[in-house]
Amino acid sequence: MTDEPSATAVVPGHLTLLFSVVRDDDPRATGSRGAGVTLEAGVQTTVSPGTRTTFNGEPIEIEPVDRVLDVLGVDSAVDIETPLALGAGFGISGAATLGAAIAANAAFECSATENELVTYAHVAEVESGTGLGDVVAQARGGIPLRLEPGAPDVGRLDGIPARTRVEYLVLGEVETREVLAGDITDLSEAGERALEAVRTSPTVETLFEAGWRFSVEAGLTDDELSAVVEDVHDVGGRAALGHLGRTVVALEDGLSSVGYVPEVTAVDPTGATLIGGSAHR
Amino acid sequence: MTDEPSATAVVPGHLTLLFSVVRDDDPRATGSRGAGVTLEAGVQTTVSPGTRTTFNGEPIEIEPVDRVLDVLGVDSAVDIETPLALGAGFGISGAATLGAAIAANAAFECSATENELVTYAHVAEVESGTGLGDVVAQARGGIPLRLEPGAPDVGRLDGIPARTRVEYLVLGEVETREVLAGDITDLSEAGERALEAVRTSPTVETLFEAGWRFSVEAGLTDDELSAVVEDVHDVGGRAALGHLGRTVVALEDGLSSVGYVPEVTAVDPTGATLIGGSAHR
Repeated sequence: MTDEPSATAVVPGHLTLLFSVVRDDDPRATGSRGAGVTLEAGVQTTVSPGTRTTFNGEPIEIEPVDRVLDVLGVDSAVDIETPLALGAGFGISGAATLGAAIAANAAFECSATENELVTYAHVAEVESGTGLGDVVAQARGGIPLRLEPGAPDVGRLDGIPARTRVEYLVLGEVETREVLAGDITDLSEAGERALEAVRTSPTVETLFEAGWRFSVEAGLTDDELSAVVEDVHDVGGRAALGHLGRTVVALEDGLSSVGYVPEVTAVDPTGATLIGGSAHR
Repeated sequence: MTDEPSATAVVPGHLTLLFSVVRDDDPRATGSRGAGVTLEAGVQTTVSPGTRTTFNGEPIEIEPVDRVLDVLGVDSAVDIETPLALGAGFGISGAATLGAAIAANAAFECSATENELVTYAHVAEVESGTGLGDVVAQARGGIPLRLEPGAPDVGRLDGIPARTRVEYLVLGEVETREVLAGDITDLSEAGERALEAVRTSPTVETLFEAGWRFSVEAGLTDDELSAVVEDVHDVGGRAALGHLGRTVVALEDGLSSVGYVPEVTAVDPTGATLIGGSAHR
């Protein structure tokens, strides 16, 4: 009830533990199969009148955010706040894009449905080359299994019904576009095997085991990452890598119990959601 | 990490504002199309060793809860706590059934996926004659549109991406089984028209308008309910009925602003989720 339309959405971070790539002429049907963990540590995106885009207060340009606002026919400022590191595998571009779509829809009364907003954000990520499966996982929350790739009307999701404390340690960055532009045949075959293992035994323990095996088989680990994961495994803990990034993620107190000083969060139960705002009337 | 397996799930209440009934030989494909509002006011269900079922501390028997535990192969005590009134349209049987499934799966390590648990609970409700669309809506949270009826692998959901304060006033009870056993042709035709209106303009305002029109056309209102709804409409507020019950629900402060003393809650953003417990190891 104000002249300044504004709205804020929160979207969980998403660490993909295993995945395979599926390309299609239709960007809605392009995406990834796989599994991962959404995190209460997430991204808060506020839309209001203006033209700037900021990331933790600093000017930034995020191609899929621009694309999704174009599709909604909205010109607005987008302010993105997150404790998560860019380029470390948390799906921040997907979260900002979906958050911008949800917030802009509310502030500017675009009358899109939830599935439509997820579709717009998924397509914007695919067309920008910045992500393949984060948006649909972040929309759902929890521990999503991406059984069939793509937007809601095309893809198919399930989930592992568990909630737990999660710890993570960021050791560096990976450029998503570069990895996805390379030869990913072996990676995708390893991802399909890993997803099948999780479907056979849909527990968080199997997810972390299959995730780590995937990272090794797909050549996505290195000595530094493997050393940390093995420290956790040595005492019976569960650890795996978040892709595409150089991030180790562990269940419960897996990292802190062996002497690391990780960030601490938890499985997000909610998925993407509006948290406030006022539409233009 | 204890010898006493126990887990607790929370599931939102669900007020169906409009619906049509779809029957099929397969109970997974039986259900309802329609739309409603899930509520932060919900049902907390705890599963632990034992044989009792209690509702707010009093012994009770709830057929679909027994059925869903049978399917999971679990014998356990089920303790259900809720501020919501039974028989007033809040989908309490669906919430208790889904909550028991989620909690039992965690406590007794049944290794079912989220979609499987929702399917078991939906089928238990259909076979008990206690509900047709609450479970899938309660699993999703928010403001669910049930586009195609039935369990996750069969049905199709979307949602209106809005969150708002919600007020409600319970004026009495309706026995779900009796209404669903009668002739529901006219009701279903009115429900299909109402859902089409919401799909054309997916906003909470349209939902409440289409919901109220549905209640009138389907013959589900009476003088007392209509008088309350019209009091809200007279000052430009939005009100409708929650089915199957004798409950008036309004957006924002719709009821309190015209002098009623309603219960106050909000759209639930999360859907059904585990909140704690310890599995048997």
